[in-house]
Amino acid sequence: MQRKTQFRDVFYVSDGTAITSETVGHAVLGQFPLDTKQTTLPFVETIERANYVKNIIDQAHSKRGMQPIVFYSVVIPEVKAILEQSNALLYDVLHAMVAPLAKDLDLEPKPQLQRSHSIKKDTDSYMDRIAAIEYTLAHDDGVSLNNLDQADIILLGVSRCGKTPTSLYLAMQFGIRAVNYPFIAEDMARLKLPQAIEPYRYKTFGLTINSDRLQAIRQERMADSDYASQHQCETELDKVEAMFRREAIPYLNTSSLSVEEISTRLLDMSGLKRRMC
Amino acid sequence: MQRKTQFRDVFYVSDGTAITSETVGHAVLGQFPLDTKQTTLPFVETIERANYVKNIIDQAHSKRGMQPIVFYSVVIPEVKAILEQSNALLYDVLHAMVAPLAKDLDLEPKPQLQRSHSIKKDTDSYMDRIAAIEYTLAHDDGVSLNNLDQADIILLGVSRCGKTPTSLYLAMQFGIRAVNYPFIAEDMARLKLPQAIEPYRYKTFGLTINSDRLQAIRQERMADSDYASQHQCETELDKVEAMFRREAIPYLNTSSLSVEEISTRLLDMSGLKRRMC
Repeated sequence: MQRKTQFRDVFYVSDGTAITSETVGHAVLGQFPLDTKQTTLPFVETIERANYVKNIIDQAHSKRGMQPIVFYSVVIPEVKAILEQSNALLYDVLHAMVAPLAKDLDLEPKPQLQRSHSIKKDTDSYMDRIAAIEYTLAHDDGVSLNNLDQADIILLGVSRCGKTPTSLYLAMQFGIRAVNYPFIAEDMARLKLPQAIEPYRYKTFGLTINSDRLQAIRQERMADSDYASQHQCETELDKVEAMFRREAIPYLNTSSLSVEEISTRLLDMSGLKRRMC
Repeated sequence: MQRKTQFRDVFYVSDGTAITSETVGHAVLGQFPLDTKQTTLPFVETIERANYVKNIIDQAHSKRGMQPIVFYSVVIPEVKAILEQSNALLYDVLHAMVAPLAKDLDLEPKPQLQRSHSIKKDTDSYMDRIAAIEYTLAHDDGVSLNNLDQADIILLGVSRCGKTPTSLYLAMQFGIRAVNYPFIAEDMARLKLPQAIEPYRYKTFGLTINSDRLQAIRQERMADSDYASQHQCETELDKVEAMFRREAIPYLNTSSLSVEEISTRLLDMSGLKRRMC
């Protein structure tokens, strides 16, 4: 059982954004006990740049005396040929799946440059995404409760429980129009849904968080304030969670979740469709 | 050369967010002439839910009389075993790379649940990301030009050329603190860098766009206004691009680029490091 930690240089190379290579590479590397230095080299579209990249990789090899790891996705044949002469461990992130799929479907693959992450500006999908970002920005942090009929989801929770990053991620990645509304200290005496939200309660979704996490986050923002006190955090969370239960609003504890996990769990729980952007 | 368009149901299944399966699946499918209906089934963490998912896949098969395509990434062995009994074309999005990497590195892989897209809230990286989003929101659309010493990048351009989505994407995906500043009609007579930005000109980056695209986007927002007129769009773009050249500010035309492409090209051109979030 070899579990000692190796060091490797890692390169993500693509003739597109390299986002796919990064995503796959990260997930794959997450399964190994490796120390890495990671470099992303996108838009390798010319022979000149391909030679430059090959050079960087070969230099890393000479310097460390160890083959770097290269995750790549390259369509242009001349670029690919040069890259594959690098002195490295080379992993084509899509080929391993494209080949069997072509066989299973009896279809010929047609590699396309910048095939992913390149929706054009003149498509409805692009416009929808921009509109969702705008709508979400205009409805961040309770700034506006107008036009809630156009909302896809209305996030509720105490200040600093993760509403804003989640809303923006939903808009950016999935084209979802998200409203978020914070309950503040002044609301606590008689906590209820704002009148403007009442008709759209079927769109509401609660976020909550453990009080120690909330305290740490608020402390970072406003050290030693009432706002960041243990008492205030616990009181707000107790009252808001009680309201979620009383009003039968589905809710999620964000304490141990990333923004991606909160967003995708929330979509799953609410039945909202992901629109791929 | 078979190029006729097939139809297939496609499922993305994971015991995590399913973001990796979606990213890979999209890129792979982009190479085939396929009509698809796509469904994402994340957080398949129990035997019960695995059976539910298997059922959905098998029903799709019965209904269409054709095997659905399943891109999956599942760590829990019991869940994986059930899923792999589905009547479908099954593609494990990571295994094809994990196996050869393990061999090449002579390391044993250790599959981890939710290994990607799950940075915990108590890490610096999470806090950095949240701070970057907040900074970027506070510096959107010229709202504030304070604290520019903390900016990683300052985006400049006419209204509606893509600054806001790009800024938010940079903050969200790469933890970059982005300022964006719009030049407006009133600036055009004597166009120059705002005084507050002058000391940080080495952080500036220009965005521009073709005038017909700009007109279409502005038309959508404010139909038949001066703001959306051909004359106004052309004038603003001419003047701003002339300023970019005069001031030696690097710039990028966003007309045919997605938000991902603008962001990654900009990082590449500016030499800013991607911080993985």
